[in-house]
Amino acid sequence: MSTLTVKAYGAESTTADLKEMNIERRETTPTDIEIDILYCGVCHSDLHTARNDWGGTMYPAVPGHEIVGRITKIGNEVTKFKVGDLAAVGCMVDSCGHCDSCKQDLEQYCLNGFTGTYNGKDKHLGGHTFGGYSEKVVVDESFVLRVPENLALAAVAPLLCAGITTWSPLRHWNVGPNSKVAVVGLGGLGHMAIKLAKGLGAEVTLFSRTPGKTEDAKQLGADHVVISTDEEHMNSVKGKFDVIIDTVPYVHDVNPYVATLNISGTLVLVGYLGGLEPILNTVPMIMGRRSVAASLIGGIAETQEMLNFCGEHNIVSEIEIIKMQEINEAYERMLKSDVRYRFVIDMKSL
Amino acid sequence: MSTLTVKAYGAESTTADLKEMNIERRETTPTDIEIDILYCGVCHSDLHTARNDWGGTMYPAVPGHEIVGRITKIGNEVTKFKVGDLAAVGCMVDSCGHCDSCKQDLEQYCLNGFTGTYNGKDKHLGGHTFGGYSEKVVVDESFVLRVPENLALAAVAPLLCAGITTWSPLRHWNVGPNSKVAVVGLGGLGHMAIKLAKGLGAEVTLFSRTPGKTEDAKQLGADHVVISTDEEHMNSVKGKFDVIIDTVPYVHDVNPYVATLNISGTLVLVGYLGGLEPILNTVPMIMGRRSVAASLIGGIAETQEMLNFCGEHNIVSEIEIIKMQEINEAYERMLKSDVRYRFVIDMKSL
Ligand SMILES: [Zn+2]
Ligand SMILES: [Zn+2]
Ligand SMILES: [Zn+2]
Ligand SMILES: [Zn+2]
Repeated sequence: MSTLTVKAYGAESTTADLKEMNIERRETTPTDIEIDILYCGVCHSDLHTARNDWGGTMYPAVPGHEIVGRITKIGNEVTKFKVGDLAAVGCMVDSCGHCDSCKQDLEQYCLNGFTGTYNGKDKHLGGHTFGGYSEKVVVDESFVLRVPENLALAAVAPLLCAGITTWSPLRHWNVGPNSKVAVVGLGGLGHMAIKLAKGLGAEVTLFSRTPGKTEDAKQLGADHVVISTDEEHMNSVKGKFDVIIDTVPYVHDVNPYVATLNISGTLVLVGYLGGLEPILNTVPMIMGRRSVAASLIGGIAETQEMLNFCGEHNIVSEIEIIKMQEINEAYERMLKSDVRYRFVIDMKSL
Repeated sequence: MSTLTVKAYGAESTTADLKEMNIERRETTPTDIEIDILYCGVCHSDLHTARNDWGGTMYPAVPGHEIVGRITKIGNEVTKFKVGDLAAVGCMVDSCGHCDSCKQDLEQYCLNGFTGTYNGKDKHLGGHTFGGYSEKVVVDESFVLRVPENLALAAVAPLLCAGITTWSPLRHWNVGPNSKVAVVGLGGLGHMAIKLAKGLGAEVTLFSRTPGKTEDAKQLGADHVVISTDEEHMNSVKGKFDVIIDTVPYVHDVNPYVATLNISGTLVLVGYLGGLEPILNTVPMIMGRRSVAASLIGGIAETQEMLNFCGEHNIVSEIEIIKMQEINEAYERMLKSDVRYRFVIDMKSL
């Protein structure tokens, strides 16, 4: 298979800083789209993959799964896009296409495993996939999204992971104008959860450990901020929320939040992978038919729906634009939660 | 308020055996119904309340919330029943009637607390309520259920707690002809879950720790039995079930069952109150949008729906009829799970 060599930024090993390197992209097959990457959002998963925090990283690791750009080439069977269109790619570039999940547009739960945009198994070239920290990417059109032309392009990038990760549970658990939604944590995911829930018409509350984020949360659209370390404040919202989107990425006690769920309410974990400690108490659950659930990104059709919705409602991410060469410093700042609320790389800098 | 004295069976203290005693019932108010109790099912809650296992028991404690009988008297405003009708009473005899839950026919989640059939706060006579281990009970008509005439009356009694406790989650999580349902535990609740899920048209699997219950489970309607201690057997049903009704009443590891949920599936705890140990792992949940939920009995309208359904589908509980005087021995047998599958007291014996 013929390839083209493109510039990228990646890590050569667990401990190495990211640096410039060359990678190969396949020439477009008949159903492929070649995208000139203009912006790429910086997700926590990028950092964890680059540093092999979860194990399983294949090197060199080129992260990036919040990709927006312009189409430079299309295969001769491509029907949905043309050269010059804006386009986006999120966390997935392929899936089996025929399992029960794929048939239901739930590619993120592909029973044969979806192909991650980076660190996935590259079915075309062998080896592993490389993400959006690069000049170009080539992706099958069925995993390429359209981007509304009216939005600030750089600020669209984080919708492809942070956006869809919070949109999917909001939609699955039927959030709408009569819903009371709470969001735990105000980072990349949390700030999108506020904007999207608000866009859907819900009354939105942020749970925050400190009062310092109140002003910001309200500017993002939150109707209320509840200080989760203030027991009295927490008691005042007992039994209130239909859906809670919990974006906290580390182990934390979910019991105080479960107590704030309405009858038949659901708390959805979207940030934390691991054991629930302290242990989950079933008593408040059984006394109100409450659920604890978890959700992973979203399907391709659902991602398109979210992008269209954002176009109609003028919703984008709050971002800080960086140069590709600033990525290692950006990772350090992310580890200190020193970002409002998402770094986006201007790929012209590469 | 004038009262009538009726014979009952109850415990005078935490350590006392149940014995015959007299209790007072109110005279029927305009909306009340007086029921001559013919049969009363024996629930694990009866035993735990009699012995104060959960704390909060008020003595004398007269248990029993699976009550069926015939109406002997009605208040002059009663419209839905007449003297001579069969009637049933379950776990609740009152609720506030005006909270969000009550307005949605979810009296079991009354925000002001429903009145338990026993050990509840008696709003009419003061003191606490007495359950169905007695000759008669007087209940407001809005908490009285109709009983289909075609069913064996004694075997209807357990539907009022064990039946509705499993029916409510089956309905809430939309179990129907295309559903794959699993049931954990084959006791009073578990055997009803099998019958009701099967009645709703689902494919039903029992999880059992030992092969000894296979024959019984299949006779009750289970399509499959999976031995939960057999790792290979468990692996063979990974990702299979849309809904799991977990009836186990003591602390147990739910993680192996969560792994057998289908994408977007829900495991519903109906038997266990307490902390989930070993800790719940969110990884299999996030990788398939799986939920862990809990559910408490069911509302009055839903209980009536279930009784009607059982009438149409000829579904009753599997029971062993005992005399009132055998109740202390029956409790000991229940503690050893030595009952197939519910004791029902023939109240003529009192
Ligand atoms: Zn991401
Ligand atoms: Zn698939
Ligand atoms: Zn019961
Ligand atoms: Zn109420």
